[in-house]
Amino acid sequence: LAMLQGHAQIATRRFDVRDTKGLKALVMPFDLVISAVPGFLGFQTITAVIEAGKDLVDISFLPEDVLPLDSMAKANGVTAITDCGVAPGLPNLIAGYHHALSTIHRFEYMVGGLPRVRTLPFEYKAPFSPCDVIEEYTRPARLKENGQVVTKPAMSDRELIWFEEVGTLEAFNSDGLRSLLYTLPSIGEMCEKTLRYPGHIDKIIFLRDAGFFGKDPIKVGDASFTPFDLTTEVLKKGWFLHPEEEEFTIMRIMLNLEDGEGRRTVQYHLYDTWHPQTGISSMARTTGYTCTAAAHLILNGIFNDKGVFPPECVGKHSAAKDFVFNYLVARDVLITCTEGSFV
Amino acid sequence: LAMLQGHAQIATRRFDVRDTKGLKALVMPFDLVISAVPGFLGFQTITAVIEAGKDLVDISFLPEDVLPLDSMAKANGVTAITDCGVAPGLPNLIAGYHHALSTIHRFEYMVGGLPRVRTLPFEYKAPFSPCDVIEEYTRPARLKENGQVVTKPAMSDRELIWFEEVGTLEAFNSDGLRSLLYTLPSIGEMCEKTLRYPGHIDKIIFLRDAGFFGKDPIKVGDASFTPFDLTTEVLKKGWFLHPEEEEFTIMRIMLNLEDGEGRRTVQYHLYDTWHPQTGISSMARTTGYTCTAAAHLILNGIFNDKGVFPPECVGKHSAAKDFVFNYLVARDVLITCTEGSFV
Repeated sequence: LAMLQGHAQIATRRFDVRDTKGLKALVMPFDLVISAVPGFLGFQTITAVIEAGKDLVDISFLPEDVLPLDSMAKANGVTAITDCGVAPGLPNLIAGYHHALSTIHRFEYMVGGLPRVRTLPFEYKAPFSPCDVIEEYTRPARLKENGQVVTKPAMSDRELIWFEEVGTLEAFNSDGLRSLLYTLPSIGEMCEKTLRYPGHIDKIIFLRDAGFFGKDPIKVGDASFTPFDLTTEVLKKGWFLHPEEEEFTIMRIMLNLEDGEGRRTVQYHLYDTWHPQTGISSMARTTGYTCTAAAHLILNGIFNDKGVFPPECVGKHSAAKDFVFNYLVARDVLITCTEGSFV
Repeated sequence: LAMLQGHAQIATRRFDVRDTKGLKALVMPFDLVISAVPGFLGFQTITAVIEAGKDLVDISFLPEDVLPLDSMAKANGVTAITDCGVAPGLPNLIAGYHHALSTIHRFEYMVGGLPRVRTLPFEYKAPFSPCDVIEEYTRPARLKENGQVVTKPAMSDRELIWFEEVGTLEAFNSDGLRSLLYTLPSIGEMCEKTLRYPGHIDKIIFLRDAGFFGKDPIKVGDASFTPFDLTTEVLKKGWFLHPEEEEFTIMRIMLNLEDGEGRRTVQYHLYDTWHPQTGISSMARTTGYTCTAAAHLILNGIFNDKGVFPPECVGKHSAAKDFVFNYLVARDVLITCTEGSFV
């Protein structure tokens, strides 16, 4: 909170969001709430905000399904946009946009946040908590094949992908599709992959196979702890991203779609770097500005449907998608779009 | 001790060797003591035995220098042979043997104990305690170059070596020379390497660089522990060598020497496997039989010098070296020796 001191229009307040009754009172004077709590606190936080009747944008990457909160949001007249960061977030918005205009045969995206300077052994720094990264590396990945949701092991289907800005990266399955698995049932093929420098994931697989992600407690002397706990602590040091350390966020979104003009591929590309003028990381920029764009969507009355909406349910309104893209461009977060014929 | 029940000539006794006064009384009725305690208990144990005036063979791989005990051993009329296993042990014996007969220009050996079945990720099982193996992987390696003792990082100077019995292995510096660094000062070039399946040591270096061998305590909740402690526990499972699991011990000893017949290379080769008839591991066979051979050397009066002697100081007596070799051959531990001209 100390970083926000001195901004005339910002008041800070330290508050334990687990006090849901107090939280409801706390948000009462405001028009809109942005929830950016750690994932494990997400569900109870947005439940309290919806109960309080307040509009909401959420980027807490909570593990639970939020659609059960939809009816309460409708009843309370609340507009809630969830999972609205860079990813999940932008790819959902784009999927929803094209889904409203065409038939999508295949939807696929890959995304990563990486340090510019590659330092062995991991060639990785965590722009968010290491334990959430390890969760991402261990949770089985759900994707869609032939119209069916299938589950594959985390870090499967590895492939090398070349990017003009940063060279060859390695992509592997992760569990980032979330609501997309169910909200756009007409799309038969969907997958999401995480990007890292080549070799990184070999070390993660090694740590997993050697038992370092285990969650059964081990006793050493009087102390009892899990390998997962220790690994998280060890990596917290090794993966520490210094605030001034140059990093980038890179994302490629690919659609095979068909409309009145025929069948073709559409590819979106995002590459954003640590911003030297402001010292703001690309992960903060791309996630934060997508989130605040959604807040302005609600506050400006561009999107005011009542209920709980993952971004694909917002993007189907082209005015909403255009607003978010223009909002990002105004902040130097550039997304290019290219089209080609379907091979 | 339960494994020894039923042998008519063996009596077992559970005893805490840290009670050095009690230990001296315990050993009093016996002719000779073999110390096979964990390394960290080694020095105090053999000190007590020498104070008790008993002859001694030690295979506890203690970290301390034992030569300061030499004068007490002489005063008490004790013959003590230390570090007398497969390695350290046999290479020392061989170095001492040739040192008495020739000028040794270079002495080098490499040794490893490995499972026959290679299982990823480590392709390794520990024939002794994992924490001692990790110590071996972290302790800087002392060797001799141009007559000087030099220290190199553990796991440095990696090279691939092909063996007829087991294919390509990887050798790297470890700290196995110990007393040889000082007892045979005329040998200007000496090194010792550990052998593993290729790739194993990359994973160890990765774990080290990632901080998993750290000895600074980390706090998680109320528990405090070191990465080293946890890693040891994780590897204890992954490296567990089942008593019936086939393993082998392989060693190559190379000398460049010069005598009346000119300059040439002499190479010793040992390859021993888990013994199906007895179920005894090669590590137990090669270490244990070398140790008991030394005990018979003393008991049979072949070597009765008074003082503390690493095996190189025993091997200079060719009768002693021949006795140990014949003792091993009688137990199917075969060491071949080949000679070639010096290139």
